[in-house]
Amino acid sequence: MSFDLVVKGGTCVTASEMFEADIGIKDGRIAALGEGLNGEDVIDARGNLVMPGGIEAHAHIAQNSATGGMTADDYTSGSISAAYGGNTCIIPFAAQHRGMGVTETLDLYDSRAQGASVLDYSYHLIVSDPTEKVLTQELPAAFKRGITSFKLFMTYDKMLVNDAQFLDVLSVAKEHGALTMVHAENAGMIKWMTDRLLARGLTAPKYHALSHPALAEEEAIHRAICMAKLVDAPLLIVHVSTPEGAALVQNARDAGAKIYGETCPQYLFLTHEDMDKPGMDGAAFMCSPPLRDKATQDVLWQHIQAGTFDVVSSDHSPYRMDETGKLANGPDAPFTVIANGMPGIGARLPLLFSEGVGKGRLTMPDFVALSSTNAARLYGLLPQKGTLAIGADADIAIWDPAAKGVISTNNQHDNAGYSPFEGWKVTGLPITTLSRGTRVVDRGQLYAKAGHGQFLPRAKFDATGRKGTHLPELDIAR
Amino acid sequence: MSFDLVVKGGTCVTASEMFEADIGIKDGRIAALGEGLNGEDVIDARGNLVMPGGIEAHAHIAQNSATGGMTADDYTSGSISAAYGGNTCIIPFAAQHRGMGVTETLDLYDSRAQGASVLDYSYHLIVSDPTEKVLTQELPAAFKRGITSFKLFMTYDKMLVNDAQFLDVLSVAKEHGALTMVHAENAGMIKWMTDRLLARGLTAPKYHALSHPALAEEEAIHRAICMAKLVDAPLLIVHVSTPEGAALVQNARDAGAKIYGETCPQYLFLTHEDMDKPGMDGAAFMCSPPLRDKATQDVLWQHIQAGTFDVVSSDHSPYRMDETGKLANGPDAPFTVIANGMPGIGARLPLLFSEGVGKGRLTMPDFVALSSTNAARLYGLLPQKGTLAIGADADIAIWDPAAKGVISTNNQHDNAGYSPFEGWKVTGLPITTLSRGTRVVDRGQLYAKAGHGQFLPRAKFDATGRKGTHLPELDIAR
Amino acid sequence: MSFDLVVKGGTCVTASEMFEADIGIKDGRIAALGEGLNGEDVIDARGNLVMPGGIEAHAHIAQNSATGGMTADDYTSGSISAAYGGNTCIIPFAAQHRGMGVTETLDLYDSRAQGASVLDYSYHLIVSDPTEKVLTQELPAAFKRGITSFKLFMTYDKMLVNDAQFLDVLSVAKEHGALTMVHAENAGMIKWMTDRLLARGLTAPKYHALSHPALAEEEAIHRAICMAKLVDAPLLIVHVSTPEGAALVQNARDAGAKIYGETCPQYLFLTHEDMDKPGMDGAAFMCSPPLRDKATQDVLWQHIQAGTFDVVSSDHSPYRMDETGKLANGPDAPFTVIANGMPGIGARLPLLFSEGVGKGRLTMPDFVALSSTNAARLYGLLPQKGTLAIGADADIAIWDPAAKGVISTNNQHDNAGYSPFEGWKVTGLPITTLSRGTRVVDRGQLYAKAGHGQFLPRAKFDATGRKGTHLPELDIAR
Amino acid sequence: MSFDLVVKGGTCVTASEMFEADIGIKDGRIAALGEGLNGEDVIDARGNLVMPGGIEAHAHIAQNSATGGMTADDYTSGSISAAYGGNTCIIPFAAQHRGMGVTETLDLYDSRAQGASVLDYSYHLIVSDPTEKVLTQELPAAFKRGITSFKLFMTYDKMLVNDAQFLDVLSVAKEHGALTMVHAENAGMIKWMTDRLLARGLTAPKYHALSHPALAEEEAIHRAICMAKLVDAPLLIVHVSTPEGAALVQNARDAGAKIYGETCPQYLFLTHEDMDKPGMDGAAFMCSPPLRDKATQDVLWQHIQAGTFDVVSSDHSPYRMDETGKLANGPDAPFTVIANGMPGIGARLPLLFSEGVGKGRLTMPDFVALSSTNAARLYGLLPQKGTLAIGADADIAIWDPAAKGVISTNNQHDNAGYSPFEGWKVTGLPITTLSRGTRVVDRGQLYAKAGHGQFLPRAKFDATGRKGTHLPELDIAR
Repeated sequence: MSFDLVVKGGTCVTASEMFEADIGIKDGRIAALGEGLNGEDVIDARGNLVMPGGIEAHAHIAQNSATGGMTADDYTSGSISAAYGGNTCIIPFAAQHRGMGVTETLDLYDSRAQGASVLDYSYHLIVSDPTEKVLTQELPAAFKRGITSFKLFMTYDKMLVNDAQFLDVLSVAKEHGALTMVHAENAGMIKWMTDRLLARGLTAPKYHALSHPALAEEEAIHRAICMAKLVDAPLLIVHVSTPEGAALVQNARDAGAKIYGETCPQYLFLTHEDMDKPGMDGAAFMCSPPLRDKATQDVLWQHIQAGTFDVVSSDHSPYRMDETGKLANGPDAPFTVIANGMPGIGARLPLLFSEGVGKGRLTMPDFVALSSTNAARLYGLLPQKGTLAIGADADIAIWDPAAKGVISTNNQHDNAGYSPFEGWKVTGLPITTLSRGTRVVDRGQLYAKAGHGQFLPRAKFDATGRKGTHLPELDIAR
Repeated sequence: MSFDLVVKGGTCVTASEMFEADIGIKDGRIAALGEGLNGEDVIDARGNLVMPGGIEAHAHIAQNSATGGMTADDYTSGSISAAYGGNTCIIPFAAQHRGMGVTETLDLYDSRAQGASVLDYSYHLIVSDPTEKVLTQELPAAFKRGITSFKLFMTYDKMLVNDAQFLDVLSVAKEHGALTMVHAENAGMIKWMTDRLLARGLTAPKYHALSHPALAEEEAIHRAICMAKLVDAPLLIVHVSTPEGAALVQNARDAGAKIYGETCPQYLFLTHEDMDKPGMDGAAFMCSPPLRDKATQDVLWQHIQAGTFDVVSSDHSPYRMDETGKLANGPDAPFTVIANGMPGIGARLPLLFSEGVGKGRLTMPDFVALSSTNAARLYGLLPQKGTLAIGADADIAIWDPAAKGVISTNNQHDNAGYSPFEGWKVTGLPITTLSRGTRVVDRGQLYAKAGHGQFLPRAKFDATGRKGTHLPELDIAR
Repeated sequence: MSFDLVVKGGTCVTASEMFEADIGIKDGRIAALGEGLNGEDVIDARGNLVMPGGIEAHAHIAQNSATGGMTADDYTSGSISAAYGGNTCIIPFAAQHRGMGVTETLDLYDSRAQGASVLDYSYHLIVSDPTEKVLTQELPAAFKRGITSFKLFMTYDKMLVNDAQFLDVLSVAKEHGALTMVHAENAGMIKWMTDRLLARGLTAPKYHALSHPALAEEEAIHRAICMAKLVDAPLLIVHVSTPEGAALVQNARDAGAKIYGETCPQYLFLTHEDMDKPGMDGAAFMCSPPLRDKATQDVLWQHIQAGTFDVVSSDHSPYRMDETGKLANGPDAPFTVIANGMPGIGARLPLLFSEGVGKGRLTMPDFVALSSTNAARLYGLLPQKGTLAIGADADIAIWDPAAKGVISTNNQHDNAGYSPFEGWKVTGLPITTLSRGTRVVDRGQLYAKAGHGQFLPRAKFDATGRKGTHLPELDIAR
Repeated sequence: MSFDLVVKGGTCVTASEMFEADIGIKDGRIAALGEGLNGEDVIDARGNLVMPGGIEAHAHIAQNSATGGMTADDYTSGSISAAYGGNTCIIPFAAQHRGMGVTETLDLYDSRAQGASVLDYSYHLIVSDPTEKVLTQELPAAFKRGITSFKLFMTYDKMLVNDAQFLDVLSVAKEHGALTMVHAENAGMIKWMTDRLLARGLTAPKYHALSHPALAEEEAIHRAICMAKLVDAPLLIVHVSTPEGAALVQNARDAGAKIYGETCPQYLFLTHEDMDKPGMDGAAFMCSPPLRDKATQDVLWQHIQAGTFDVVSSDHSPYRMDETGKLANGPDAPFTVIANGMPGIGARLPLLFSEGVGKGRLTMPDFVALSSTNAARLYGLLPQKGTLAIGADADIAIWDPAAKGVISTNNQHDNAGYSPFEGWKVTGLPITTLSRGTRVVDRGQLYAKAGHGQFLPRAKFDATGRKGTHLPELDIAR
């Protein structure tokens, strides 16, 4: 057989395997793994790692807030930055604000993404207004459209759902096979702490961390897990940032609940001390949940190793340090009105590889599982995405494990204008990303055009999926 | 490329993947995965599952006890039964008795296995006499010979090591990269309970269960884990049979210790009530640890799903129900002198598939991980064995997931003369097993000859290996 | 010295002691413990137990609901029933409804209690509307008045506070030294379950239990504990009814948090099956949290023994089974509009004594601690109430430990018209209760008049009080 | 009534009470508590605390080791030091060495104690050789003699029992109602660590700490608890020194097991850094288990507050820093042959009062419970000792809570020749101790003579005794 493209001589890595093989690609899909394969086009991967491209499953792109502010990245810049960082697929959010319909929301995000992305994409649907119509008509319709993950907020006045609404959405999600994700922080605790800080005139960015205590995360994660247990529905806790929160996820899984966890590079590499900078400079490090401390980082790494977290995502939230972003309310604005979040879609994988695999905390298959395969599994994309199996889309990242680099906003290709990881040295970098067998980025050069990326209708979440093992059901009764 | 053999059209399953592909085999190894492969020989696997063959990592074959009794199976009958049951590799024990040297022991077992096995094999070395010479010379020599797993007993007067000896062996194992396994039951508790039962004349086989209380396992597992923590050495707890023991393994792993667990089909499918039979009939169900109760089965299944157990092994211990085995001391012998153990090397995989995958408790990749890949990983055989990766030995089991059967000693092909699982109905059976690309069993017919199987020198245990992710280190510093 | 009254020859029991002694009473207080005491009046207590009278710390008396319904007992009938049941002090609730001021509320309850009670009394203040004025002016004023315990609801639409309000009250309570109590059930879960039951037409009383799942209690207790930790304020979880909730209390205490727990006889002696009766009969057993199952009873007893619960209270909520109470909305009313609660102020101590001490679950000092001393300690009444120490009020219950009786509404002396414990046989009954040295009830005869009971201004909660050890601070720095 | 002695005007403290009262003493017993009592003799206790005298339940006095070494204190010096430190009762050990009978052992210790002690005393019987005769004849005989507590060692070659022997003793103890105490450290771990230290030439006293790792205590405590559960017998873990060990005790109690715990001042106030001194000076701080670190102290205090520990004992082990004691094997002896232990019988209560009550960690009743009442309860002495109840022995300590002092070997009155607490400043000191109404020490002056103290036959341990509530059973069935 002749192939359109052969990736030759690399060390292939999957979530459980590592082997030398050529990869034969035909019609955008992986058609063969073997030795001595030939094709019209060849990429020499000798000495390099050949892995499923990363799947970025937590990013805010072309997303406007309830009050109108817009992220600095659109689907073009966001997907390009992702591709440079070794990703081949992105799943940002489509945010329903109150008063909007779900169909209207998805149409709006389609209009923002179509023709813009260089990588295949889907959205998680943020539900902030679960009206009867939404629950009975629009969520099922969204599901039919291939949107099989919903996200809820337990904080942010304009986005949060109450507990009964949370149960409503979990129930609909369970019925259709969607996965519910949750931003778990206790709104009341945050409000109460914030009021006390403001009353004392403590308004600098660094006080943002104090206003979001670890107990607020612990409380909300426990509550969310209780609700998931009541409905017996799967639930993913996004961006877990505390030892207490991670322990709750671990205990729930140990006890057999279908609870999943995500953490982010910022909680593994930065601390709240990064916010303690003069003037508004600390605002660059504002995110929710906030950065914690060094001891927390160690515990979160331990949980990654113990399998508590299925995915490590960027929570890419690009707001510029100017009047279009973090400084929209002026240079003296209190932390309460500064946009939350930080960019990182391009830095996620090099940091995780260098600090994880390079420092002996992760095996290579761990890296693939955390960066790609598990996201594919949780979000209904496996085996089309997230693996090197025969028949899968040829979404491949080729890494030079010895390449050395320094993370800088200059090499991130996003529009945020800064990187919270500025100056971090990394060993191991992606040198080529292929989307369905087509070069998107190759040795620093962008090849794919806006619009190459296509919308991905996703399969339902399979509730039997457990640690690393979700796959289509086998019909053994035939 | 032309292949020696192509397995065509099956659904391939690995520990993390499931995909339709042909497998091209050349020189005994997997040379290609792809579509439309051709070869001199072809096996039509359409409609069937194609998986790495099972690795049986806990079996007593051609093993004599400290007092001279011999198992009913030798390497020929034992490996044939394993092959019929979907296995392609076995790792029984080489047992050092007190006064024996380790080299002498391994030579003895080589003489029993060479030319006899139809499947590739290695041994775990049972250490019962860790003299200075054993610790400083013979264990390192065994390690060089490719024996990279040692087993210790905490019970059985003639086999047990004391705590200081346990630490000595752990320390040597750690230094060389061997994995220590342990039979964890408290000898003193068992002795105390046994004395009380005998003093009351309670000698029937069923009292064996009472003599080995769950607390004896819980205690010994905790003690073993403490010792592994002291040395910071990896440790595998074999045949865990209690909820308390499983929880200790889970907690240790959750906390980052390199503790691994194994359970066995008998603890998942049988209960101590099976021992409550007239006369000596209950002796057929005597094993150590003993069978527990129904509630325990449910908890053990939950732990399998939660990842507490890496392997489900048979603990195949074939003793006939006659004077060569269980009845060696006569029909009225007290339970204390009846040989412990039960056969099951051929029944392990059909039971696990039928009750696990077939009843929705396991995904297919779970099954592969538990039956094959994890054992390969823990015992230094990956990626040569335990996977379908390019370059791996073509050790393959082809399963018909819809085939129905009934387990009976008549179809087990071992020499035990009975099966504790007699009459169990299963759905899903292996129809072909390939060892290095050669048919061992095909549709009920045995093809491989005694001696086809070769000794496998094994690589060291890689302490960075965690849940499903152990692979050779990547040299990223080159 | 000559005494007004001597209780002679009894076996005295305190929370930690048991000894034979006479008790000499003068001016309403205990003036001596000793041998051979003489007085103008003598009670022969030989063969009987002499204990601090019970303190009933959870009762709804002369309390109207937010919608106007009134409990069947006023301070006269409620206190008389309590006195017959071995109590010498009661602390019902004064309920602020939304729109009411706190001072107004306390004045209202003063008007209901003054001149009516036969026993000394105080109130816990229910706060449902923590306005700025309430927080900054009225709660401090209530505290000055001697009201040093506040109660919050996490469920019931018209009573509940949100999380930020909860923190506000905890913070004020901490500042002044008040103890906060909480009814912990998740309102959203209850609403969601209730909606689903009603939608299916499941409106019978027994569905009340389903509408209040155990997870709703577990969730709310965890949330309440997190809030108490954030403020570092003491918190008492009232009427804990689930193993999960009890474990959360226990774990918090084990970890050093100032968390206290209460359970009630109905959760120890009744189950949800008691609600499964024809028509409205099940309504007699409706309370919130609802009755659970038999396994729960065993776990709650274990927690009593382990010290998780400081107090066992009645949660006396007397609503008649007629149109003035449970049937106010007609014989076909859905469970959602039936008054919650059951009577039990007179049955609490005989049940706890008979089933606790009589069946070996409690020691005598345990009984005194759970029924009297711990409540005095938590609610700022020790050493005036709750003990037999020199100087304490002579509030004494004399029990015949061998007396046998049967609980029946006929011997409860309350106005509820039924007893959920009808027919329970008990061994051990109070025969005399003394309030400040005056006979209230003696061998079945009521002596004290309405108005004998006085309002008790209470001391602040001492946050250093731990399991059984709270006492006024010692000034060792003088 | 007229009394032999009245303690007037003090603040009385019991394990649960605190009140102003005079105490009337007649015939050596407390005959009255009241106001205005008169007697032939009066002690003015105004401004002072009047408490049950301390019971020292862990001390090595007139005890020889298996190899012959003798403690520096005999019953005279040991009891005098105890009395100066606020104690009125001591329970040292009678140590059976291998080959000795139990009766022989008790006779020997009787001969050492009779006529020597100034305080009433009993012994715990150390069992190191549980032969059939010991188990079936001598332990029951010892029990009849009033020796109702047995102590076992899990370490020390010449003293330890194996697991089956441990179960034998637990079983006999349970049958008769004795309490078993255990020194829980894993002998094998200690041997293994010691061998490695010695092999490296690390023999200085400070290496003693390394040779007894925390894991050795954790392991042995877990094992001991498992054995107690198997027999369903009560067990007290003495001198718990690690967070892990304390957590095991706490968890066992939480789960309803009859497990009790003790810790000692050295683990609360000293650390292993105290051993890091030149030459043999560190030997003064050698004890087993060894001193740990500062973080451990905090956790142990938390466990005291949470009720994990029932008693805080001194483990007084007086060996002089000369050739009669620690230097018996010369100035260069390795740590393995240096006598273990440190003096502290006189310092225990002042340290616990000053650091506990004085620093807000304990209430006064906590102090009484930990220093006296709980020991009386556990060891079968309540209500004769350990309380201020009517009828109890008038064993009373009068404390000046404001007195300031400095602990020094000069004011300890023992024969150890040094104090590990030298220089510690304390606030609160005992000024008078009464034994059965007789002054033993009063304002620095010793009054009682050797021989005043009498042997105390003790009652059986009452297995229903739980946290602070053990008392003689009430016969409610009469």
